[in-house]
Amino acid sequence: MRNTSSYDRLTDRFSRIATIGECASMLGWDAAAMMPRGGGAARGDQLAVLAGLSHAQLTAAETGDELAAAEAEGTGGDPWRTANLSLMRQAYKRATALPADLVEAQARANSASEKVWREARKASDFAQVRPFLNEVLRLARQAADALAPALGLSPYDALMDGNQRGVRAADVASVFAAYETFLARALPEAEARQSRAPAPARPQGPFPTDAQEALCRRLSERLGLDFAHARLDRSAHPFSGGTPTDVRITTRYVEADFTQAVLAVVHETGHALYERGLPADYARQPVGEAAGMGVHESQSLIVEMQACRSDAFLSWLGPELLATFGGDPAPYQPDNLGRLWRRVERSFIRVDADEMTYPAHVILRFQLEQALISGDLAVADLPGAWNDGLHALLGIVPPDDASGCLQDIHWYDGAFGYFPCYTLGAMAAAQLMNAARRAVPDLDTALGQGDMTPLLGWLRANVHALGNRLGFNDLLRAATGKPLDPADFQAHLTERYLG
Amino acid sequence: MRNTSSYDRLTDRFSRIATIGECASMLGWDAAAMMPRGGGAARGDQLAVLAGLSHAQLTAAETGDELAAAEAEGTGGDPWRTANLSLMRQAYKRATALPADLVEAQARANSASEKVWREARKASDFAQVRPFLNEVLRLARQAADALAPALGLSPYDALMDGNQRGVRAADVASVFAAYETFLARALPEAEARQSRAPAPARPQGPFPTDAQEALCRRLSERLGLDFAHARLDRSAHPFSGGTPTDVRITTRYVEADFTQAVLAVVHETGHALYERGLPADYARQPVGEAAGMGVHESQSLIVEMQACRSDAFLSWLGPELLATFGGDPAPYQPDNLGRLWRRVERSFIRVDADEMTYPAHVILRFQLEQALISGDLAVADLPGAWNDGLHALLGIVPPDDASGCLQDIHWYDGAFGYFPCYTLGAMAAAQLMNAARRAVPDLDTALGQGDMTPLLGWLRANVHALGNRLGFNDLLRAATGKPLDPADFQAHLTERYLG
Repeated sequence: MRNTSSYDRLTDRFSRIATIGECASMLGWDAAAMMPRGGGAARGDQLAVLAGLSHAQLTAAETGDELAAAEAEGTGGDPWRTANLSLMRQAYKRATALPADLVEAQARANSASEKVWREARKASDFAQVRPFLNEVLRLARQAADALAPALGLSPYDALMDGNQRGVRAADVASVFAAYETFLARALPEAEARQSRAPAPARPQGPFPTDAQEALCRRLSERLGLDFAHARLDRSAHPFSGGTPTDVRITTRYVEADFTQAVLAVVHETGHALYERGLPADYARQPVGEAAGMGVHESQSLIVEMQACRSDAFLSWLGPELLATFGGDPAPYQPDNLGRLWRRVERSFIRVDADEMTYPAHVILRFQLEQALISGDLAVADLPGAWNDGLHALLGIVPPDDASGCLQDIHWYDGAFGYFPCYTLGAMAAAQLMNAARRAVPDLDTALGQGDMTPLLGWLRANVHALGNRLGFNDLLRAATGKPLDPADFQAHLTERYLG
Repeated sequence: MRNTSSYDRLTDRFSRIATIGECASMLGWDAAAMMPRGGGAARGDQLAVLAGLSHAQLTAAETGDELAAAEAEGTGGDPWRTANLSLMRQAYKRATALPADLVEAQARANSASEKVWREARKASDFAQVRPFLNEVLRLARQAADALAPALGLSPYDALMDGNQRGVRAADVASVFAAYETFLARALPEAEARQSRAPAPARPQGPFPTDAQEALCRRLSERLGLDFAHARLDRSAHPFSGGTPTDVRITTRYVEADFTQAVLAVVHETGHALYERGLPADYARQPVGEAAGMGVHESQSLIVEMQACRSDAFLSWLGPELLATFGGDPAPYQPDNLGRLWRRVERSFIRVDADEMTYPAHVILRFQLEQALISGDLAVADLPGAWNDGLHALLGIVPPDDASGCLQDIHWYDGAFGYFPCYTLGAMAAAQLMNAARRAVPDLDTALGQGDMTPLLGWLRANVHALGNRLGFNDLLRAATGKPLDPADFQAHLTERYLG
């Protein structure tokens, strides 16, 4: 052993753990974007072995000894070291709170359930997957109950904290309640206003896939992604993965319409730019990682929703699209693109929802998953509760469970306490955009020239470069002067949809 | 700990080690075929961490204890278990014979040297890389000296055994000496015969890259590769990687000529078919792996050289190529393709050499690397020794070191004792083809219809399915009735080039 401090030994250990995570991330990308289907079984084994090796590094007895020694040594008041050590302690607490056999049982149950869910969703047959979801939930509740005392949180908060630290269900509940009130007033108004405007014209395809792909790559580069450190590929569902120096984004293409591909790419580019901007000095350390899934979503949504769907950016993008695809210029007029890509609609599927109704889908899931974890809602009663809840929020009832409680993979794969991140991200994006506009006066002028440099510069300095040093609300306070304030998001929606 | 035998615990351990190796193999493929250049530094770290984890699993004290206990328990006479346990012991011996600081020093020195070599080769400047090669060689000799007593082999044999077990330098030397004698007579004869035949006509391009790629994939499928378990991609140098259920082959394309791409793909398909045919019952066990690099090369060369460059196969392939690319049919006549793709020529670059002169390049390297490892040849004297040696073998002298001792990456990356595998593979391929022809009467008729099924069936049963149960000569004995016999290869060359 070298003659180093306990803290240095911990940074070596966590760097090793993060590097194992990078391997897993790359293999996950490969599985979605490249792997022939015959490689699936072996890939599952590979990821399980990596997870086991990583877990063994984290829960080794030496980790506990080194943490105690480093905490006793102190970090000399350096805020990065202090935060890093505290995040190491949290990671150790989480990993050691869960018995190994529970972690294994969850991996098996989640994997089995997710497979059955794919079939059940196709058949819109909740009964088929019900016993599997029951088992997934039973184990998730056990995990939450084990994590809660270790972290000093309620069981549901313990799960949510694993996705976005520094946020509690009570805070989320009050923010969401305010949004419900806003939505009840704003949605009918937006619909009425929309019905008075001309119907948007759709660009007429077909749009050759290769041309779409070339456009998407150009656009991603224009937004600031450096393809010496990135790839753009295809997968069944768009995602962003890889590592900070080698980010991998994906999208999917349909010949009839380029909208889905283009908007997915700008969204994933936002995620990728965040990873690229994380502090290199703390690479592979807990404090150098992204600050949680809510913050991550804020970075994709500030690019997609705030910047790229703005009037300014559309005034640049419209002519670009026309130059790429040709044909009738009318649909590519910026005001038409605005009506087309900022359309409010009460609908059943979360991932297709507009930015005003999207939070309603999240609120529904937030309510239901709290009740599932607390035991107040039984799995058997989920379809009815789902339909009642959506009716209360949006006044519509799904025609079947495929459009209802079977639509999302999350719960069937064991992910509880994740959904709030989507809307926390949307709200944080609006708040960050406001602060950026105040700090950078020429931000919208630049967007009107297809130039995201000023916005990206501000995000790099005020969000990306902070890594995971601050929790959700502290990060927002440092960047915008206040913790999460839903008023910014409501003001954004009011201006865009009711202005 | 479950109540299992020591042998079962060892199979679990080696399965974990092999699975870590699968991760590394996939990440290696990605680095060559997919990775943006900015990902290189992180990828190096990822592979180093995986290598460290794998080494730790292999050299753990428990491995030694379990090996001793399993050897005491015995394997009940099962030849697979016996071979597996013996291979585990060998792997343990190799890994524990090398001090960890030597392994690390080699990794650093090899990586540094390989980087400088790329520049030195471009500049044809041996002096630039000489000190790096000196260091690589110094450490390789240390490693060979450490391995030799542990394995009961000479230092050079200890290195060669790591690439192809069951072969000794003394055997190789006698086989190669016989080939030198053969070549001295056969090469001038082949050249004279060739000069009397019409000059081959070259197909005229350009050949669009996409059409070449589609053809290569069709061809690879036709040869028996199942793309539910395989991919074909592009990389700077063709290779075969991945895992037995997910093989990844690559090639490169130039618009002016499809020859290189097509022949590389059939070669790599041979490697891939071998991996696909390994015994699934022993997947991730040492006994279930390929039987060494010489045997691996025999499987690529039996497909490329023996099958695909045969008159029978070319009579099917010619019309296929013509249908793909169109144009003047004359160059696609099978006899013309034969004269084009089976042309003997004294040349400087090993990888471009024909099958008759290729062994001369290997013999040269075999002689030189033995002298480097024994200390009889100093690095400073390598360029002169190279040029003298090539002159003695082929009567030509390289115009510069880029065409001489700088052409191959192997030594500069620390690989000594590997080169003989190429020619052992070529000779084994001829011997296996003879045996297959004796056993499967309709083999050539099928090849004439572009059908490799009969040959592949025989290879699966007699080579692939044996995994790593037998060493090089024992495998040949089981499949062909005799150990390596260079007469088969010489007979093949005599028939093809002097017949």
